[in-house]
Amino acid sequence: MALFNRRNFIRTGLLTGTGAALSTGNLSAKPAEKTLNEIGKSKWELDSPALCVDLDKLEKNIATAQSGAKAMGIGVRPHIKTHKCPAIAHRQLKAGAIGVCAAKLGESIVMLENGIENVLMTGVNVTVPKINRAMEYRKKYAGFIQAVDSPQNARDLNDAAKAMGIVADVVVDLDVIKRSGIPNGPQALALAQLVDKLPNLKFRGILAYDGMNQHVKGFQNRRVAALKNYEPVVESYNLMKAAGLNLEIFSGGGTGTYNIMGEVNGFTDVQVGSYVFMDLQYMQAGGKNNEKVYDDFESSLTVLTTVINTNFPGRITTDAGSKALTLNKPNPFVIGEPGFDYAAGSDEYGMISYTSINKSYKIGDKLELIIPHCDPAVNEYDVMYGTRNDKVVEILPILGRGKGA
Amino acid sequence: MALFNRRNFIRTGLLTGTGAALSTGNLSAKPAEKTLNEIGKSKWELDSPALCVDLDKLEKNIATAQSGAKAMGIGVRPHIKTHKCPAIAHRQLKAGAIGVCAAKLGESIVMLENGIENVLMTGVNVTVPKINRAMEYRKKYAGFIQAVDSPQNARDLNDAAKAMGIVADVVVDLDVIKRSGIPNGPQALALAQLVDKLPNLKFRGILAYDGMNQHVKGFQNRRVAALKNYEPVVESYNLMKAAGLNLEIFSGGGTGTYNIMGEVNGFTDVQVGSYVFMDLQYMQAGGKNNEKVYDDFESSLTVLTTVINTNFPGRITTDAGSKALTLNKPNPFVIGEPGFDYAAGSDEYGMISYTSINKSYKIGDKLELIIPHCDPAVNEYDVMYGTRNDKVVEILPILGRGKGA
Repeated sequence: MALFNRRNFIRTGLLTGTGAALSTGNLSAKPAEKTLNEIGKSKWELDSPALCVDLDKLEKNIATAQSGAKAMGIGVRPHIKTHKCPAIAHRQLKAGAIGVCAAKLGESIVMLENGIENVLMTGVNVTVPKINRAMEYRKKYAGFIQAVDSPQNARDLNDAAKAMGIVADVVVDLDVIKRSGIPNGPQALALAQLVDKLPNLKFRGILAYDGMNQHVKGFQNRRVAALKNYEPVVESYNLMKAAGLNLEIFSGGGTGTYNIMGEVNGFTDVQVGSYVFMDLQYMQAGGKNNEKVYDDFESSLTVLTTVINTNFPGRITTDAGSKALTLNKPNPFVIGEPGFDYAAGSDEYGMISYTSINKSYKIGDKLELIIPHCDPAVNEYDVMYGTRNDKVVEILPILGRGKGA
Repeated sequence: MALFNRRNFIRTGLLTGTGAALSTGNLSAKPAEKTLNEIGKSKWELDSPALCVDLDKLEKNIATAQSGAKAMGIGVRPHIKTHKCPAIAHRQLKAGAIGVCAAKLGESIVMLENGIENVLMTGVNVTVPKINRAMEYRKKYAGFIQAVDSPQNARDLNDAAKAMGIVADVVVDLDVIKRSGIPNGPQALALAQLVDKLPNLKFRGILAYDGMNQHVKGFQNRRVAALKNYEPVVESYNLMKAAGLNLEIFSGGGTGTYNIMGEVNGFTDVQVGSYVFMDLQYMQAGGKNNEKVYDDFESSLTVLTTVINTNFPGRITTDAGSKALTLNKPNPFVIGEPGFDYAAGSDEYGMISYTSINKSYKIGDKLELIIPHCDPAVNEYDVMYGTRNDKVVEILPILGRGKGA
């Protein structure tokens, strides 16, 4: 991976600026007293490491994706695997999202039980306990849609739905990345027809996620890659359409392709996830209007860390290592210090070496970091601190954290 | 990093065998009802991804470290940053540990509040809120020892202890790795003398962690590296001894050097952490009796995952990706399938490619994985399932999870 141009980063002003505020989402679960005490404080007073989200920027990002998708004639179905917060999902729905996606059953349940009624689970449930649990939730929540990518699993879902006395909504997941999904063409058509035929399943359409396209550098390169990689999916779509199947859902894409997917024939809604926060991996992909930095969305998510050691020349040690930031690359970016190289390879410590430094630091000083990859980093924390103008105004419990099962 | 020889791994029988059972640790916090329902089940019935610990092997590992350290005339002060479970810390203490280490204040508090009364916090507290909170806990728990690595921090701790009306126990953290600690020699001596002089601090000795030595391959190479890298620490120790300071604690080392540190002059206790679980990073370091595999301790910790997709030739997709395993290297090892290469780079999915395969797999089958690096992987889970002979006998809440602050 090419080195990220940090100086360019700063020049774009990407790290500053505030957006218009939307209304506040519901907060269904009560955070611990310790964190509630932080409301009203400056974020710089928070205990570290702390995960912070600038709510003005977050809400601006949500609005940007909505208007961008609308301009392309498609809907937005945000993927909550990124934030795992009902409080953010509520904001996304209020801004016009047609529902949300969730990766795992545990995450889906957290959303359903916290007032998010339209959840499309993009992963499959294949074990008996998971299928039964999923069907229990489908019985309680009509807006819960499940994915399937093999004939046996379709039959298993049908049997469980029958036992539960329901007809369960299902989309067929199509291959783009040779990871999940059913191969495109005849196999995909046969599976869709099987789902359509099974009496206790209702075929709602298709799903196809193109993870490999999202971070392609340069908007035109990304556009070409996305349209090419979706060709087999569109072929499956056409086969299903010719067979007279219901294709009310054709969902896929992501933050890197929210303004591309509208060009795909039949496509209905984009599964943007990281756009709410942004991260270094996405920022360095470049955008339509800025080839160097993908600045359609602003960086709203940061980790605060504290300087804990300055005893060694040319080095600064902090309290945020891989348990606070993950091992994802590129290295975390220290806001205001483009000459810093922040290594998070140590479990407990961040280790900064530098070629240039803009101010002197002493033990106890706080630094603010942009995260390499937002989804797994969010999964390390129990809450995020919602700020406006650097003041903590809301505690957002990450209720889907650790719900991989 | 050199490729790990997986076949050798299997031949050693490292992945089988059971150990002697010790008594069960206390379980101070009640796990959720959902997990309690799993007691009595076969581990193969658990929902996945699931973190499992073979308690027989764990207890054997605990006994091995105790007897190994005893043979060298040193004590064991296990580092709970690895497991974050009071239930395991209680086992370590019952087996003869003289106390535990914790990395962060949050972890220390979890231990203190759950019946672990002797906690040496190896990280420093440098902000006013953290120092005050630490002193509150020192007031309640006489066995809580704090580390310091700068003169200003020593004065800050003293002031806080004075305000709390206590004399707080402190060790000076000495540099080995240029990450935490005070440089050795005159600076170290001056800091120890300052702590000793400050009226509200009690100087208890020194701390020095040599992270870079722990995974050196080959026992003799590791021994030479550890003894050499501790030379400056021993020099500081000698200066402090000559100055008449109390050196009742000289703590350091780890799983890789538990049978080496007894050779260091004045050393009192080894901070073994990973030995309870083992992981691939440690296993490939080699041991005193087995140059290829470090098998002094058995692999007790595994992640269970489920096969969710077999649609693509030469590939198997599972439900455990980087959120379940972290991005640490080497790649997770699939027990029983040395020809598998398990990539956990995807947030939600494990992707197996293989050169050889010992059985055929279908959707829903479970696989068991040995983890690359145990500490940060444990930090992804809320509970671990304690098993004996593959049956779930205990739920161990990971109460220190996410307590980085």
